[in-house]
Amino acid sequence: MPQKIVIIGNGPAGLTAASTARLTDRTAEITVVDSKKYDTYHPCALPFVIGGYLPSIETIIEDLNFERMNITLLLNTVADAIDRKKKVVTVVNNDDGSKSTLPYDKLILCTGSNVFVPPIPGRDLKNVFRLKFAEDAQAIKEVVSAESIKNVIVVGGSAIGIEVATEVRHLGKEVTIVEMFPQLMPLKISKDIALLAQKRLEETGIIVRTGMMVKEILGTEKVEHITIGTEDKLETLAADVVVLATGVRPNAQLAQKSGLKLVENFKAIEVNEKMQTSDEAIYAAGDCVSVTNLVTKERSLVLLAGPAVRQGRIAGINAAGGDTRYPGSVNSFIVSSRNFYVGVAGINTEQAKKQGIETTQAKITAPIRPHYMPTTKPITIKLIARSSDGKLLGGEVFGEEKVDENVNYIAFALQTGLTVYDLLTLDFCYAPAVSETIYPIVIAADAIVRKIERKKARAAKSA
Amino acid sequence: MPQKIVIIGNGPAGLTAASTARLTDRTAEITVVDSKKYDTYHPCALPFVIGGYLPSIETIIEDLNFERMNITLLLNTVADAIDRKKKVVTVVNNDDGSKSTLPYDKLILCTGSNVFVPPIPGRDLKNVFRLKFAEDAQAIKEVVSAESIKNVIVVGGSAIGIEVATEVRHLGKEVTIVEMFPQLMPLKISKDIALLAQKRLEETGIIVRTGMMVKEILGTEKVEHITIGTEDKLETLAADVVVLATGVRPNAQLAQKSGLKLVENFKAIEVNEKMQTSDEAIYAAGDCVSVTNLVTKERSLVLLAGPAVRQGRIAGINAAGGDTRYPGSVNSFIVSSRNFYVGVAGINTEQAKKQGIETTQAKITAPIRPHYMPTTKPITIKLIARSSDGKLLGGEVFGEEKVDENVNYIAFALQTGLTVYDLLTLDFCYAPAVSETIYPIVIAADAIVRKIERKKARAAKSA
Repeated sequence: MPQKIVIIGNGPAGLTAASTARLTDRTAEITVVDSKKYDTYHPCALPFVIGGYLPSIETIIEDLNFERMNITLLLNTVADAIDRKKKVVTVVNNDDGSKSTLPYDKLILCTGSNVFVPPIPGRDLKNVFRLKFAEDAQAIKEVVSAESIKNVIVVGGSAIGIEVATEVRHLGKEVTIVEMFPQLMPLKISKDIALLAQKRLEETGIIVRTGMMVKEILGTEKVEHITIGTEDKLETLAADVVVLATGVRPNAQLAQKSGLKLVENFKAIEVNEKMQTSDEAIYAAGDCVSVTNLVTKERSLVLLAGPAVRQGRIAGINAAGGDTRYPGSVNSFIVSSRNFYVGVAGINTEQAKKQGIETTQAKITAPIRPHYMPTTKPITIKLIARSSDGKLLGGEVFGEEKVDENVNYIAFALQTGLTVYDLLTLDFCYAPAVSETIYPIVIAADAIVRKIERKKARAAKSA
Repeated sequence: MPQKIVIIGNGPAGLTAASTARLTDRTAEITVVDSKKYDTYHPCALPFVIGGYLPSIETIIEDLNFERMNITLLLNTVADAIDRKKKVVTVVNNDDGSKSTLPYDKLILCTGSNVFVPPIPGRDLKNVFRLKFAEDAQAIKEVVSAESIKNVIVVGGSAIGIEVATEVRHLGKEVTIVEMFPQLMPLKISKDIALLAQKRLEETGIIVRTGMMVKEILGTEKVEHITIGTEDKLETLAADVVVLATGVRPNAQLAQKSGLKLVENFKAIEVNEKMQTSDEAIYAAGDCVSVTNLVTKERSLVLLAGPAVRQGRIAGINAAGGDTRYPGSVNSFIVSSRNFYVGVAGINTEQAKKQGIETTQAKITAPIRPHYMPTTKPITIKLIARSSDGKLLGGEVFGEEKVDENVNYIAFALQTGLTVYDLLTLDFCYAPAVSETIYPIVIAADAIVRKIERKKARAAKSA
């Protein structure tokens, strides 16, 4: 009898799990359950719809053609409960509330994340938006495009906040980003690099207010003002639209309700290297799980689409009877704006300090192509390494081009355990149209090597 | 007493050796000897001068300001002989033929490469050029820019040939590339990928004639025709200018004359991991040496500026008293044209066959960004791996963008010994503006994994 595989959630992790499960077991009965009304969409592209860079949400909604792969897709359907003894999932149809049950041999939870919105008074006023689904982007686009809308406040200065602010500013609106932490992209990017991004945003006319709590959203019927401030001092800004980009959190409710083990710090599902939960018949992948950080070797939260896809692949293969492992993530992260990119992989100095590691770091700005090439541009790279042996721990990148590429080089070095010494002899290809003979990442590595060697020489002298 | 370091040659390897020697030993007396009249130039940028993409050779000639580092630079000077017993180099001034001697404690040979020109009758006619130095580019530019010049023949279809042809075509000339081998970039790129490049060149109006020997260059005073053909059939083409881009060979004459050990296959200087020749007081780096190919573990010829710089660094540090090693090269190579790039790292199927390795390969074409992004473009990646365990052996890349980046990913995997299985779980950063969640290189790796797994399954069944 063919095995039954049920997948809850059809985001990046879920749809990948479904297709790899199918490739692994040609005869399995595979069912995917999702609460949305359409097959799937590309969440990271939502800001582009708002600003009109992409013409409509139809562009980023995708028909997966699961019939072709003989996968059953139950849309507009919510998984309500798991009976782990009987191996049955209860699902509810959103339209009529009707319940039905899906028996499974293997279950894969890809329940993703929920938008986290702090309990700000006034958050349910009209023209206050959160951004998660394609419909949200469509609604924001429709409202914000109106000529009557002048002032748009984006609450939250991380990836989505920056990208939404960029796109709305492109529509000619007055845009303010309000960030609670003293810098943009807090906990991700170090302050000096975040300031480079802030300066670029400000150059486009976006106002950035860091270290500012949102106290209240004000308005009759629809939003009119927003009160922000510090402990000492409040101020009120005009606001025709507020977009709450205050982050996402793992959606592990179904897992929790079903008694699966969570990683308490993160309220995310605990999985092993096979992406298997504490119930060996149940796998999980994507934003709802906690995976190993490959640098710290500790459990971490990732909440990124790329790792979700890679985890979904592992979960799908293993659930269908294959055997493959997910080693963990280095949290490669990139934010795109229209005039810069900023990215990071691994850990920063503060995180290393928490680990008790003595670090050496270097920040350099160097041209991505030879100085004589008209297409050259500067890129800023900060690397941090363990002082004892130069092992790379993390890096951040800021620039107009090749930021993704350099984040990937850093990630690659982290994942293969390279030292800054190793980076100095690595082959990178060279042609003046694309690069310098000595890449910026190598210049940064060399700066660290010299610092470490000087420290060693001083220590040897004083010994 | 400060040690004396003498460096012969001020190309990418030599100038890097000089500056790293200085950083390693602040007091050494460092002298660099070079036959050119200017400090240094950027050889890989010569085609851009010919086509006017760069305004003049002055753009790519550089004053190194060696005085600042207290390095003596003897220009217009040729190293004539080495007395290894006395540790003295005899140098000759090009202007007056005067000889002098330079005593050394450590000597670094960075004598680079010579243009190789086959003994074609007529090769010394006017308007027949070779391309090595900045003056060559200037001379070609001056002649080729004249309105009277209609037909330009480029002999040799590898990197320099393709780049020169592209730039001259951009000036509106009729351009023909004549290549002796049955494909462009022979011995570097596999035929199917080379054909993609050829098609793009042809789309710009360049005529590509592969499998064609040059029999004779004809003309009174200056070149007028060129006879090309196969064993069976000759034909004569009109030619106002001929550029001989027939390759370079290591310049190891001084080393050979001095009794240093050469790698016979390549007539290149043999060095160990410290970039030390058979005489422990003499180091060598750059185009004149043979280094280990990190994939085959055999001695190889590299002839590329990037590795030359990295080797120069190692030679400079070690000669000055430091201790660092050069592991070898994976021959990362990229050719740029105005409408495509093509690159490679590692070895191809034929080279693997020679090594007796059974290989599995996959070639895919995939979008570099999500299909809904207007900036997306296709890229073609071919990977080859060892069938027994999936260890990556090499890869080739063709496209309009991100070719350098993907060559570097391949090189990185080769240098860290990754398998195609490893590539499937690696973190790459993702944002729709820069990438897809699943990178093209991962799609290619996955295709190989599936092939290998199918082979295994078949083998298991038949066993």
